[in-house]
Amino acid sequence: MTDSATLALAKDLINRESVTPEDAGCQDQMIARLEALGFTIETMVFEDTTNLWARRGTEGPLFAFAGHTDVVPSGPHEQWHTPPFEATVIDDHLHGRGAADMKGSLAAMVVAVERFIAEHPDHSGSLAFLITSDEEGPFINGTTRVVDTLMARGEKIDMCIVGEPSSTHHVGDVVKNGRRGSITGDLYVKGTQGHVAYPHLATNPVHQAMPALTELAQTLWDKGNAFFPPTSFQIPNIKAGTGAANVIPGECHAQFNFRFSTELDSETIKKRVYSILDAHGLDYTLEWTHSGDPFLTDKGTLLDAVVAAVEEVNHQTPELLTTGGTSDGRFIAQMGAQVIELGPVNATIHKVNECVSIPDLEKLTDMYQKVLEKALP
Amino acid sequence: MTDSATLALAKDLINRESVTPEDAGCQDQMIARLEALGFTIETMVFEDTTNLWARRGTEGPLFAFAGHTDVVPSGPHEQWHTPPFEATVIDDHLHGRGAADMKGSLAAMVVAVERFIAEHPDHSGSLAFLITSDEEGPFINGTTRVVDTLMARGEKIDMCIVGEPSSTHHVGDVVKNGRRGSITGDLYVKGTQGHVAYPHLATNPVHQAMPALTELAQTLWDKGNAFFPPTSFQIPNIKAGTGAANVIPGECHAQFNFRFSTELDSETIKKRVYSILDAHGLDYTLEWTHSGDPFLTDKGTLLDAVVAAVEEVNHQTPELLTTGGTSDGRFIAQMGAQVIELGPVNATIHKVNECVSIPDLEKLTDMYQKVLEKALP
Repeated sequence: MTDSATLALAKDLINRESVTPEDAGCQDQMIARLEALGFTIETMVFEDTTNLWARRGTEGPLFAFAGHTDVVPSGPHEQWHTPPFEATVIDDHLHGRGAADMKGSLAAMVVAVERFIAEHPDHSGSLAFLITSDEEGPFINGTTRVVDTLMARGEKIDMCIVGEPSSTHHVGDVVKNGRRGSITGDLYVKGTQGHVAYPHLATNPVHQAMPALTELAQTLWDKGNAFFPPTSFQIPNIKAGTGAANVIPGECHAQFNFRFSTELDSETIKKRVYSILDAHGLDYTLEWTHSGDPFLTDKGTLLDAVVAAVEEVNHQTPELLTTGGTSDGRFIAQMGAQVIELGPVNATIHKVNECVSIPDLEKLTDMYQKVLEKALP
Repeated sequence: MTDSATLALAKDLINRESVTPEDAGCQDQMIARLEALGFTIETMVFEDTTNLWARRGTEGPLFAFAGHTDVVPSGPHEQWHTPPFEATVIDDHLHGRGAADMKGSLAAMVVAVERFIAEHPDHSGSLAFLITSDEEGPFINGTTRVVDTLMARGEKIDMCIVGEPSSTHHVGDVVKNGRRGSITGDLYVKGTQGHVAYPHLATNPVHQAMPALTELAQTLWDKGNAFFPPTSFQIPNIKAGTGAANVIPGECHAQFNFRFSTELDSETIKKRVYSILDAHGLDYTLEWTHSGDPFLTDKGTLLDAVVAAVEEVNHQTPELLTTGGTSDGRFIAQMGAQVIELGPVNATIHKVNECVSIPDLEKLTDMYQKVLEKALP
């Protein structure tokens, strides 16, 4: 049996060892297909990262597919049942690094667009692809830089499907219509180093920090809302001490991270944190790393199109969730775009023996095509 | 001018590079002098540590001088004004590693005993020296092993002067008539590792630990007493986290140390700590390292003799303190001995350019001799 168009392209992409920030020629494969459809190709290279911005048409609204060609490392090959960079079909699953995250989605997008253009040459609006090779990396030279470039020249995405693996048991059972924001604080509480036998001559920064950190951890930051769970505060890292049991340390470093809902914004979080730290009389410095604001697409053309498309294919309404980590969707949402994440089952992503259901890839292609038909009628 | 007997012996000892656990022949120098006085010599070697037990006489009471021939490392020689292992006199100070801690004291002890025996050949009781070469190290094969050996054969020290540098501004202004106990706890609080984006699937052990540690730090363990400051609790070390900002750690390790007064004992401390940890519902393991119990010599022949001897030399009453770190005195006190620490000024110990006042060394020799005359009349 001949491979379907989606399966064939997915295999081709998986066979290219595109570990972040390498693209390994994946984007060239997509470019060849998109050029054939009349897309205008822009390769945007920022530092070590190759990005693709491809657009077809000048009219509004602009509908974009977004995704990434890079994959996380495979780990030791001998732990895999099949070579991670050789696409292999076992029963009805396609195996290989990136099969689910997200080379399968990229193939489905390209094939869906090909079919859509062939069947609806006079569709409204314009089409685009925003593809990066650093989504699994530091998020510095990828989607965020492309978005900055587009905004600087006044080009705006109106609707965007991100191909991240959103599904839990079968494709389309869950779509992500938002994500929480993320902000990290590196807190350095200053004390005065000394000998534990002379505590009156020292100030223990661990003792100083603990009540404040306890209050931060016990604070109810918000109650969430219909789309978001309550904002969460976690301390992933804390460290103080020389290793010696008789030395009071001079500094305590605690790192905390907020995953926050649309009920909050980063400036409000910062103000409330400073207020708590100051109320405890701490001598401290605090460095913030703001990874992203929350976004939410809770109504509009795109959400209606996605829900209807999934229902037509699955005969089941998708669950709308905003859980999980951050995604590149946060950068695109900054443009004011409606953003929805729809992709395959995420059970095996970032693990050995990553794989994707081949029937799900075909369904995903159908869903993407139906979304286009509804969003750009 | 010829060096005094004390100064000459102190120089000889400083010139031997006896960094813990090396003795470098220091004890042999002392043995030669003590053998000449009729002491019976026992060299007790435990692992890498050489100890000296020398006794003269079989009658009670048994009066011992205790001390150590080892010194802490010098650090880079170029930071010293004089070579650290070449005893050098500058003005009226003797410079070199160990001058104050405690080769000066050892010289004063030997010379004081020589004079005492010469002037009082018919004194009461017996004399002994308990000298180790690991006081600055791990405290495993030194005084504690000698004490165990003596106790096992029923030999008991009744009074002991430890030559630790007890003084603040001039010799004898402070004597230590006790020390606090020390016990360290290594607490491992168990959580469940997970992604910060899914806090409901994880349990953060830092969050679990902080309220309990805060309560431990804020607890009033005792109020001290006439001789001891209140028991202190310090967290010298805490660590949790993988380094990644998006991973909730699986374990938090906090190390805490108590310096405790005679109002408490280690078992009471442990019970109270367990009670607080359990009240917070922690899942934890806790490993204890008990470094020593507090001891106190608040009355008796030895204290009277020391105070009177210092007053005769200084025309000033010494201050009695129990502050500072632990000392080998804690092991000797376990025998039921009266223990007092009397030695030179500690301002330069463990530092570059360690030195001791030569007039203070002569006074210390006089003090030791007068203590003997009063304690063994």
